[in-house]
Amino acid sequence: MTVKAYGAHAADKPLESLTIARRAPGPHDVQIEIAYCGVCHSDLHTVKAEWAGTLYPCVPGHEIVGRVSAVGAHVTGFRTGDLVGVGCMVDSCRHCADCEAGLENYCDAMVGTYNGATGDAPGHTLGGYAERIVVHERYVLRVRHPEHQLAAVAPLLCAGITTYSPLRHWHAGPGKTVGIVGIGGLGHMGIKLARAMGAHVVAFTTSESKRRDAEALGAHEVVVSRDAAALAARARSLDLIVDTVAAPHDLDAYLTLLKRDGTLVLVGAPATPHPSPQVFDLIMKRRALAGSMIGGIPETQEMLDFCAAHGIVADIELIRADGINAAYERMLAGDVKYRFVIDNATLAA
Amino acid sequence: MTVKAYGAHAADKPLESLTIARRAPGPHDVQIEIAYCGVCHSDLHTVKAEWAGTLYPCVPGHEIVGRVSAVGAHVTGFRTGDLVGVGCMVDSCRHCADCEAGLENYCDAMVGTYNGATGDAPGHTLGGYAERIVVHERYVLRVRHPEHQLAAVAPLLCAGITTYSPLRHWHAGPGKTVGIVGIGGLGHMGIKLARAMGAHVVAFTTSESKRRDAEALGAHEVVVSRDAAALAARARSLDLIVDTVAAPHDLDAYLTLLKRDGTLVLVGAPATPHPSPQVFDLIMKRRALAGSMIGGIPETQEMLDFCAAHGIVADIELIRADGINAAYERMLAGDVKYRFVIDNATLAA
Repeated sequence: MTVKAYGAHAADKPLESLTIARRAPGPHDVQIEIAYCGVCHSDLHTVKAEWAGTLYPCVPGHEIVGRVSAVGAHVTGFRTGDLVGVGCMVDSCRHCADCEAGLENYCDAMVGTYNGATGDAPGHTLGGYAERIVVHERYVLRVRHPEHQLAAVAPLLCAGITTYSPLRHWHAGPGKTVGIVGIGGLGHMGIKLARAMGAHVVAFTTSESKRRDAEALGAHEVVVSRDAAALAARARSLDLIVDTVAAPHDLDAYLTLLKRDGTLVLVGAPATPHPSPQVFDLIMKRRALAGSMIGGIPETQEMLDFCAAHGIVADIELIRADGINAAYERMLAGDVKYRFVIDNATLAA
Repeated sequence: MTVKAYGAHAADKPLESLTIARRAPGPHDVQIEIAYCGVCHSDLHTVKAEWAGTLYPCVPGHEIVGRVSAVGAHVTGFRTGDLVGVGCMVDSCRHCADCEAGLENYCDAMVGTYNGATGDAPGHTLGGYAERIVVHERYVLRVRHPEHQLAAVAPLLCAGITTYSPLRHWHAGPGKTVGIVGIGGLGHMGIKLARAMGAHVVAFTTSESKRRDAEALGAHEVVVSRDAAALAARARSLDLIVDTVAAPHDLDAYLTLLKRDGTLVLVGAPATPHPSPQVFDLIMKRRALAGSMIGGIPETQEMLDFCAAHGIVADIELIRADGINAAYERMLAGDVKYRFVIDNATLAA
């Protein structure tokens, strides 16, 4: 079957309306009519081939929510009409230690929701900027939010789980002081989630102008990272910092804010490396610099359920599909609070 | 009281025989006749003022073993004649969270065994290249090895605990594959300790010539780190790597050898930073780059007891005090298997 989509034919071409094929649902597949799809910075990097290996046509989008329109004969977890989500992956090997641990995101054979290897035409996966998608039920999530929040649920599938997973893994919660660096698509979710987990939340931003916004999102404190005295006042006081900033920056400024045994977790990968951190800052307090990538399927479901229970969604700006190129320009300028979401109904226009 | 010692009057002067003062034992002090003192690379860095802040005269030495010759009135843990050790610290604040956790090594007010602040003359601490030392009992360790092993016990007080602590903290043991990078003073202890803990031990060295030595120390496998194919064969297979190499080197070569959730722990601090690690190598498998510094007093006692129970000592070359300058030259050339230890009886000559 063919469906309408939005994507690019080359790195130097704008996104445009396309027609793509979707497979008929196999016995374990769930067919989803996509209602909304969040716009992640990774979409832009991939479409513009800023990371190696982009295949064209490229249809991005891995923050997908919608309604089940058909299920395969062996599907047990979903029925037609269910509200569901699909995040950054649509397949993995299903038998390695990572998959068995429910950490499919770390499987060497993880298949991304777009630009991943697949037997379907055209040989690589096509993402959520489309009317419909067909996904093996293992990689489909249940959405328990009320339907009127559905558009704002979409970014939870990437921005939400990418911050939720390290917060949980490194034990954010009551009695812990947690820093969130950067107040963008990921950071604004990090603040909301860390707050809901019961941690004392310190937001770090380069701009005094974002102080009020960060407080409104739930930060107990806001530190302007260009204010050396404000940083120094927070030295050795944080248990965990989730750093969402993908641009190269000084990691020592944050490492030194950690208590003994604290961890600075990077969830963004800069195109060029950060300045090398001082080994002394790691050794002196047994600190760690770590990385974390999205989250596994069970943890993504847990995150969605946590957000539904706590009334958490992303702050979004809804756009039409044909507004995606302009939205990318605004993302590059940092002009979005905090996530663009495509209304996929506009693909049909 | 005055005792003979060996130390330097300036960064550009060789070490020579000195006479220094030691305080009379206070109510909580233990007075120790030093039998042997290990020679750590930190001694050399400090004497030559390669790190900031060396105070002169400088008497190094923080791998101290000997016999108690007097105790203060309130000392309960030690008696005259006991075999004891003193490691890298002789005091700390005793009430911060780190001290209360028995991690005095991470206390902001930790006082090093040499070059630390003290009320005793000359205003900074003087270390173990001396006939005698007086230390608060909290910072004195019990030695349970047989006396004939005493010289080879000395390096456990720094090289031993510096590798033991991260191996324990990051759970080296049966079922775990542990890498040790560098086969020197620290690395040779790391191999012995990780092996005794029950881990599968992989030693990494730049030199094929060290293969047999590393196997003799207990390594199950030896990988020559200049052999790209040998490194690639170990990709994603280690749980923990303790990196003892203080010279700047490529950390990505080791990060990529870690499994998901693996940790690369640095225990050496290079004078200039390592090349910046690739963030992608951290993110892809939720890996961590961490640091660790010596170990706390309770853990140092645990390490000494573990070594006594397992018959573990350092491999040493015993030297006279007046051989220290020549020994430093050989250390700089990497010509020692694997630790020089001063016979402090030669100070009296």
